[in-house]
Amino acid sequence: MSRFFSDKLRKLVPYTPGEQPKNMEYIKLNTNESPFAPSPKAIEYAEREIELCRLYSDPECTDLVNVACEYFGVEKDEILFTNGSDEILNFAFMAFCDGDHPAYFPDITYGFYTVFADLNNVPYTEIPLKDDFSIDISDYEGLCGVIFIANPNAPTGLALSLSDIESVVRANPNSVVVIDEAYVDFGAESAVPLIKKYDNLLVTQTFSKSRSLAGARLGFGIGCKELICDLNTIKYSTNPYNVNRVTMAAGKGSLEDREYTEENCQRIIATRERTKNKLKELGFEMTDTFANFIFAKHPLICGEELYLKLKEKGILVRHFSKEKLDEYNRITVGTDEQMDALVKALEDILGETK
Amino acid sequence: MSRFFSDKLRKLVPYTPGEQPKNMEYIKLNTNESPFAPSPKAIEYAEREIELCRLYSDPECTDLVNVACEYFGVEKDEILFTNGSDEILNFAFMAFCDGDHPAYFPDITYGFYTVFADLNNVPYTEIPLKDDFSIDISDYEGLCGVIFIANPNAPTGLALSLSDIESVVRANPNSVVVIDEAYVDFGAESAVPLIKKYDNLLVTQTFSKSRSLAGARLGFGIGCKELICDLNTIKYSTNPYNVNRVTMAAGKGSLEDREYTEENCQRIIATRERTKNKLKELGFEMTDTFANFIFAKHPLICGEELYLKLKEKGILVRHFSKEKLDEYNRITVGTDEQMDALVKALEDILGETK
Repeated sequence: MSRFFSDKLRKLVPYTPGEQPKNMEYIKLNTNESPFAPSPKAIEYAEREIELCRLYSDPECTDLVNVACEYFGVEKDEILFTNGSDEILNFAFMAFCDGDHPAYFPDITYGFYTVFADLNNVPYTEIPLKDDFSIDISDYEGLCGVIFIANPNAPTGLALSLSDIESVVRANPNSVVVIDEAYVDFGAESAVPLIKKYDNLLVTQTFSKSRSLAGARLGFGIGCKELICDLNTIKYSTNPYNVNRVTMAAGKGSLEDREYTEENCQRIIATRERTKNKLKELGFEMTDTFANFIFAKHPLICGEELYLKLKEKGILVRHFSKEKLDEYNRITVGTDEQMDALVKALEDILGETK
Repeated sequence: MSRFFSDKLRKLVPYTPGEQPKNMEYIKLNTNESPFAPSPKAIEYAEREIELCRLYSDPECTDLVNVACEYFGVEKDEILFTNGSDEILNFAFMAFCDGDHPAYFPDITYGFYTVFADLNNVPYTEIPLKDDFSIDISDYEGLCGVIFIANPNAPTGLALSLSDIESVVRANPNSVVVIDEAYVDFGAESAVPLIKKYDNLLVTQTFSKSRSLAGARLGFGIGCKELICDLNTIKYSTNPYNVNRVTMAAGKGSLEDREYTEENCQRIIATRERTKNKLKELGFEMTDTFANFIFAKHPLICGEELYLKLKEKGILVRHFSKEKLDEYNRITVGTDEQMDALVKALEDILGETK
């Protein structure tokens, strides 16, 4: 820390992203990336765009927005693209939270919410999940502030139904409700259709998971035009050209290839369920995940030890040392082959443990 | 604006980027892009990277940082890459400015500084330039806050010498001094070597101008490791994967092709001086620019009228309506052919005006 760092930030604890090994010697099941390449159309469009990079990108993301509007059934002024969905989430904290409008979110959820809150000097309340990690929506009634719910939630993978989400939005007409749908494409229901009905709903999504574009950095928010207008004010006050040309082109290609994404999601869901069955046979306890990851613990081995033993065997998963989570590991669903290797490694580890 | 927009931001006036026409029917001399394609090596590396985009980018930008360290003669912990240089500038406002540490910058400079200040609720003082648009460095002595100086300055193109910059850094040992070197490669002196000597100096640069990568979005800051550590705290609290894979690869390729960048800069400088001579013959008054743009006015036609007439003729330049600037236009230096077309159009316009 320098002697110049502002007092207001000196206690800020940044987010810790999952390990990004510099080589590919690991089976990487730790950051919920897709095991499949981006859509061929995304790659084709992106390649074509590179030589045009001498010119700034279109701040309005016109081409991408046009395709996205058709894809999601929204209007141009109801969507905003950002440099990953972390950026739209931070924009929401900046735009709608302040001393009078604190943030509310579950005590177990995406670990970045507390960081965004601290960064923006926003008070927040972490609402405890039930013992089974589910959200009790009656805890989210008549709150005065801004509500953030990841649906499906991370790292549990549990999802709320669309009617539960609507109940929360309806029960808080004077609060913005942000539904973070990073993992929605793996079996949960999207709240996007509700934005036509509620002016207090912002839905965020990402191209990092189901669309295999984590490394391209593309996220977006969908909400009524007034909310999007506010978020645009933030965008144009921080980084008008926040989305680069190549990513914009890749995103467009990806949306035009809906079938490819949907097929990959089905494959991941099938692999997830198949893997869960095998882990169950090995004695693991797991949540009922609707995401591209499995959240699992075993009665005979603690979470951190399992994480370390898997790492020794060349398999990276994600372990969180936070209380209530530390018995578990979050395991990204990869290809069938990768998951077979995982199961084999777990068998070996459990064999050694007995 | 929505009813939810935070009171603290309701008066925020976002930055207005230069027009980005959706087609290429204009000769585009309005946003200081390079007329030359990115380095072939940048394109090659970027193309190779696209299919790897299913994986997150390296938050530490290791490969790019390694090449940059050699290029700029700095250590790994003295440099930080961002999503364009707007992001590193905003990070500096976030990290070092607050109510007790206001921002200081010239009254005529990059128009985004006031926006960053307002966004971050930072008080600021705009220090008037001299009548000839030059900076009086004696105005920048013993300030208590954070000093932002674009060198060369925008939109004037005027540059301070390295010894003047050092004087400002030395005269403010308890203030961070940010030297924004977006345009430094077109003839001015970089302050990067001074970071070894002063712990209060942050130098920012961009790949958007001399490296032909405006649309890829890549900027960086160089300073002592403590300053960079603070800026990293901000980065990891907003968007750890702020630089995407393809841009990182393009940036690396560009740095490895130093000769290509230097040749392009020499070509742009030659075209700039040649164009200035022609404009002088037409009666234009211009600043002594060290950037890839010309800042020009004519006694017979006002700035806005000239801008509009050029636009009618298919040439886009940048006009600022701010007082003291409104007589002028900022004209990006393009290819010789583009500048010949500009000169021809100006001759026609002046002919009609007489």
